[in-house]
Amino acid sequence: MNFKGSHILSVNQFDRDAIERVFNVAHQMLPYAKREKRTTVLDGAILGNLFFEPSTRTRVSFGTAFNLLGGEVRETTGLSNSALAKGESLYDTARVLSGYSDIIAMRHPDIGSVAEFAEGSRIPVINGGDGANEHPTQALLDLYTIQKELQAHGNSIDGMHIAMIGDLKHGRTVHSLSKLLCLFNKIRFTLISPKELAMPSSIIDAIENSGHQYTITEQFEGNLDADICYQTRIQEERFASQDEANQYRGKFRLNQQIYTQHFQSKTVIMHPLPRDSRAEANELDNDLNLNPNLAIFRQTDNGVLVRMALFALTLGVESLVSQFEQKVHWYVNN
Amino acid sequence: MNFKGSHILSVNQFDRDAIERVFNVAHQMLPYAKREKRTTVLDGAILGNLFFEPSTRTRVSFGTAFNLLGGEVRETTGLSNSALAKGESLYDTARVLSGYSDIIAMRHPDIGSVAEFAEGSRIPVINGGDGANEHPTQALLDLYTIQKELQAHGNSIDGMHIAMIGDLKHGRTVHSLSKLLCLFNKIRFTLISPKELAMPSSIIDAIENSGHQYTITEQFEGNLDADICYQTRIQEERFASQDEANQYRGKFRLNQQIYTQHFQSKTVIMHPLPRDSRAEANELDNDLNLNPNLAIFRQTDNGVLVRMALFALTLGVESLVSQFEQKVHWYVNN
Amino acid sequence: MNFKGSHILSVNQFDRDAIERVFNVAHQMLPYAKREKRTTVLDGAILGNLFFEPSTRTRVSFGTAFNLLGGEVRETTGLSNSALAKGESLYDTARVLSGYSDIIAMRHPDIGSVAEFAEGSRIPVINGGDGANEHPTQALLDLYTIQKELQAHGNSIDGMHIAMIGDLKHGRTVHSLSKLLCLFNKIRFTLISPKELAMPSSIIDAIENSGHQYTITEQFEGNLDADICYQTRIQEERFASQDEANQYRGKFRLNQQIYTQHFQSKTVIMHPLPRDSRAEANELDNDLNLNPNLAIFRQTDNGVLVRMALFALTLGVESLVSQFEQKVHWYVNN
Repeated sequence: MNFKGSHILSVNQFDRDAIERVFNVAHQMLPYAKREKRTTVLDGAILGNLFFEPSTRTRVSFGTAFNLLGGEVRETTGLSNSALAKGESLYDTARVLSGYSDIIAMRHPDIGSVAEFAEGSRIPVINGGDGANEHPTQALLDLYTIQKELQAHGNSIDGMHIAMIGDLKHGRTVHSLSKLLCLFNKIRFTLISPKELAMPSSIIDAIENSGHQYTITEQFEGNLDADICYQTRIQEERFASQDEANQYRGKFRLNQQIYTQHFQSKTVIMHPLPRDSRAEANELDNDLNLNPNLAIFRQTDNGVLVRMALFALTLGVESLVSQFEQKVHWYVNN
Repeated sequence: MNFKGSHILSVNQFDRDAIERVFNVAHQMLPYAKREKRTTVLDGAILGNLFFEPSTRTRVSFGTAFNLLGGEVRETTGLSNSALAKGESLYDTARVLSGYSDIIAMRHPDIGSVAEFAEGSRIPVINGGDGANEHPTQALLDLYTIQKELQAHGNSIDGMHIAMIGDLKHGRTVHSLSKLLCLFNKIRFTLISPKELAMPSSIIDAIENSGHQYTITEQFEGNLDADICYQTRIQEERFASQDEANQYRGKFRLNQQIYTQHFQSKTVIMHPLPRDSRAEANELDNDLNLNPNLAIFRQTDNGVLVRMALFALTLGVESLVSQFEQKVHWYVNN
Repeated sequence: MNFKGSHILSVNQFDRDAIERVFNVAHQMLPYAKREKRTTVLDGAILGNLFFEPSTRTRVSFGTAFNLLGGEVRETTGLSNSALAKGESLYDTARVLSGYSDIIAMRHPDIGSVAEFAEGSRIPVINGGDGANEHPTQALLDLYTIQKELQAHGNSIDGMHIAMIGDLKHGRTVHSLSKLLCLFNKIRFTLISPKELAMPSSIIDAIENSGHQYTITEQFEGNLDADICYQTRIQEERFASQDEANQYRGKFRLNQQIYTQHFQSKTVIMHPLPRDSRAEANELDNDLNLNPNLAIFRQTDNGVLVRMALFALTLGVESLVSQFEQKVHWYVNN
């Protein structure tokens, strides 16, 4: 895969080599993100951060990643404000807006919209989520987190055991992550969900065709020797009614007691966030906040590294980053 | 006209000399906008980008223009969030916000509001559109585009023939452009619109008093030897009802076949954008996208150059831009 | 008080020494804010400007203050867009967002929310207003303005006479300002409001316990020898109904004639802004705009200085600011 000048639209673009390159560059970004030093390699470059569907976390993460490389951010949020509402095609929007920056990160509620936009764009476009379809940077940051967490225990992605829990039908993140995991070797999947919210058969087929093992179940059972416990949110906005969604809320509540009962003492707990912390949901109880294996905030921190890496690679500056280093003079909490 | 420290509120401020100065500076901005190099001449300066009426394209274009000169952008969008909703006068808003930046670009839904704001402002204000009234940077970018497109054919604005098409009654852009064209010599106007949406008599008078020729018609007729075909959108939001607006939608649809029938092979096609690409409107059919004379995206690109020029001139740095040049290290699609 | 790495959540954190430190640093910021020169001391640093409740003035003031120190700003506005609406706890939001910047300024409609957020944050948080509770930077800029205005007359805060007028019950600013004034000596308060909108007894107690004098009255009476006249807006949003609020609108209208009748020729006029300039309210008549003692726009200008000072102090760069000086090349209106 040639990153320079390319769009990043789907996890399907990635092979194992491409993933390794992203992760290597992401790792080099750590001292800049931790503020041990800073870089001005993209000083003067402009990111068009187009969030036609709101998402505070993802939007700010992209913007911060670009700022950390020294670049500027021009931002657009919401759909109604846009010329799209006056009947402008995505092609036109892309032709115009791609004249205003050096690279674009874009989220949009419609499936396929970011790819359609990318066809009109004169600059690289990174998909920040197109409805229920793709969110490749989330899948990459999840996988990067898995790799780092396992490395700390002397393990690797090959051969690991991952439990995926919750709304596996609508959860875009577990679909994309599963596709990426198919590029690796000998993984065991334990898929825990109500029957109605089971992992789609297309993903199951991909897992099977890649030679991995999987178990499908409807509840926590016995002691899972999982390396990773990937919990998800009930995607309420994808259900026909709130009532339908409500019957699943709180079904796979995970707290310290359930964790101790069903997982290893070193099982890493992940979640794409936001977690619903209201009492009736509580997918991950707050009593897990002190559990050192709770990796959910390391995930979002890693998201900045992965997005920095993708910006550096698509703009072709990954080998120049350290040439533009500067000291950090201000207070840093380390 | 003395640009330094001045407000840019209306096309009426411009004489032919002033236009030439803006266009000369705009032309010097091309290598920075094309990313052949960059400039930090406004490093540390702040633009207050105040869009009390939303407009993604114009807002981002102003912001990008300021970033390309090295400056920072503080942005405000929407009216309801603002203190204006608590009964604050435009004067007060201007006194306060002009303490927060070095220059302001402002759009507001009310006619005359930007000029009223400018009276309270302690820094230069550039009008980004005040309702149905003025949008001077659009008129300048249209005229700049006409000049560049004609130059490519060895022609100039003096003596050209322009066809203006569509909603000439409500179209702010054709009014302002016509006023600027009145400063030039021997122009021929062909004004094509339904009788009810005809060009206002004040503009016709100005055209006549400047010694230009004009023809008024209700449809495409015969072969127009126009140099420029300036198509507009039906300004639905200016009609009493959607029904009233709908009777005009699609009336002056232009596609490749109609173009071939009524225009020269070199006639330049322009539009202020957004174009309504829905089937029932289709002011400019997508089959024109491959026509090399379709200049609509060159217009928006030129908008960045013109806005860079206005920022440089009003902040008095137009002759310093090249002293602050830097190399561009990242991937550029040229 | 140790500023470096600290949250700024409440006026209760400040003693007189801490106030003096903020004001000294604010004073050093003046040449940068006036554009006599600029500083890049925070070049590369990122402010997370989180306005979960909209406030154009305060939001832009924080952003500008950070830009003036050389830093970048990533901004979030509004509550509905946020993961908070999906049941995310403030703790989670804070853990995540504090990974995206070096410091956070935050406004939120709920009392105590900013302090709760700060507990989850890994970086310093500055309270930009949490509902009816605290808005410490407003209190500090008010006090800084009082000090500067009195100094111009050769006076100081100790021993001064301040009249506070209007909705003293709901006015967050007069509560916080009163608390800060309690740290000084021998102040006289004249508190003018309808009985129903009187200053809360907790503030009266604090004034009394600090050994200051106060007078409570329901209308302008005789000639007040006040040094400061602090006028406030009826906080309509804090009333049960608009009707209830309306009975107080316009009750303490101040214009040049009333000013001349009841105040000294040197009494400084202040207001937290926005002032309601509609005819039926008109807390400060526009005929005061020419009165040189009208300090309301000097207050907002001072707000930038105070916020620059707080950023510099919490990030520990207050002594480095001048080492990173640069010239200003662009037009400045002085």
